[in-house]
Amino acid sequence: MTGALTIAGLGPGDAALITPEVAAALADATDVVGYTPYVARVAAREGLVLHASDNRQELLRAAEAMRLAAAGRRVVVVSSGDPGVFAMASAVFETLEASPQWQGLIIRVLPGVTAMLAAAARAGAPLGHDFCAINLSDNLKPWSLIEKRLRLAAEADFAIALYNPRSASRPEGFARALEVLKEAGCSDRITIFAHAVTTPEERIEALPLRDARPAMADMRTIVIVGNSATRRAGRWIYAPRRAS
Amino acid sequence: MTGALTIAGLGPGDAALITPEVAAALADATDVVGYTPYVARVAAREGLVLHASDNRQELLRAAEAMRLAAAGRRVVVVSSGDPGVFAMASAVFETLEASPQWQGLIIRVLPGVTAMLAAAARAGAPLGHDFCAINLSDNLKPWSLIEKRLRLAAEADFAIALYNPRSASRPEGFARALEVLKEAGCSDRITIFAHAVTTPEERIEALPLRDARPAMADMRTIVIVGNSATRRAGRWIYAPRRAS
Repeated sequence: MTGALTIAGLGPGDAALITPEVAAALADATDVVGYTPYVARVAAREGLVLHASDNRQELLRAAEAMRLAAAGRRVVVVSSGDPGVFAMASAVFETLEASPQWQGLIIRVLPGVTAMLAAAARAGAPLGHDFCAINLSDNLKPWSLIEKRLRLAAEADFAIALYNPRSASRPEGFARALEVLKEAGCSDRITIFAHAVTTPEERIEALPLRDARPAMADMRTIVIVGNSATRRAGRWIYAPRRAS
Repeated sequence: MTGALTIAGLGPGDAALITPEVAAALADATDVVGYTPYVARVAAREGLVLHASDNRQELLRAAEAMRLAAAGRRVVVVSSGDPGVFAMASAVFETLEASPQWQGLIIRVLPGVTAMLAAAARAGAPLGHDFCAINLSDNLKPWSLIEKRLRLAAEADFAIALYNPRSASRPEGFARALEVLKEAGCSDRITIFAHAVTTPEERIEALPLRDARPAMADMRTIVIVGNSATRRAGRWIYAPRRAS
């Protein structure tokens, strides 16, 4: 019997943002594999085995999911947001490339609402013009590359969505990112801190980048730095469609 | 009586990718306003008025929606994908800023699965590392700015999602974009053409950028140019999480 491996995004937090496609995959699953807080978002039921694991265990988790699927189980690997954006899909394909014995597995990737889209919707439309997304975690890339990308993104006048801005283990990176953006001429840009978006703990703040403080962000925050034209309409913040 | 204006994303095409939040807003609406092919995706029912309009009518459409909401109607403005990504949300806020009489309206933005996420999921995980999204339409910005952004995005080694790559009215832009990316050293990069993703007409092609031809894209295509590390694992294409 051949099992199947589905890599699914649970959206940013609110169950009303889980797509019917993902809900159907969860309803059909025998096993759900993922980082503990994401697995906790899946309702327990008879016949469903929940496999929760710690952060930074992505490759072990991917291999576990593949072993289960190869044994004939219907496995869903869950991520928050979209599984393809700084989440489990890349880890699964890395594992697949290194593991010829699993190349025959049936795999599907089911997209979801990634955090920056939910954060943008709460603030208005700050991603309504060209934009980029940068993961500020330097676990898997050198900090120098992050700084280079921030500078080039500022020069390109992209709106900039920052994922994983700050963790307890590396509190200094986000402070440095704000300095790099100031040096790159972004002090006036409207900057949105969206914390725990679409959850009961949601909190949205917006202020000019020059007034942003590192402590405004944690690992549950998405930061969106507007482009040079980003502006307010009443309580809303948006990027005009037109650029000159 | 005060109405409400909801700006909602219908996802890339498949009804199974419409969030329950958006489905509930549509079920509660008295009026749906949008570009004709998107309004056609909303099921007709008694008590629901469908207002379909032509492309490039974004500001007229936004004003119509606001007039209806101000008259007490429950209006949903629909976009394909996510309403905040090259879609109606920015047009609504532009109209709001210019129209003090509507500042009191109750407005909500409901996110959706934007086309690049669905395209990426079908291909694998090409957006699993830092990336950017560029709208290739030059209706609202000069072509020189598009070229500048393409060059800087290549230099930053972002994966690059290109929206609206090609239309009948400007067939030459996408050809030029491919040339710019070749000049910027991206000839070897794996490039994905995702046509009508999640619809019955879906078609996915991937090849090195040097072999990409302009005719492979139309307005229903999302193009994703991988970063320099993007690779294949069997039939899948992904960006490794690690960068050096």
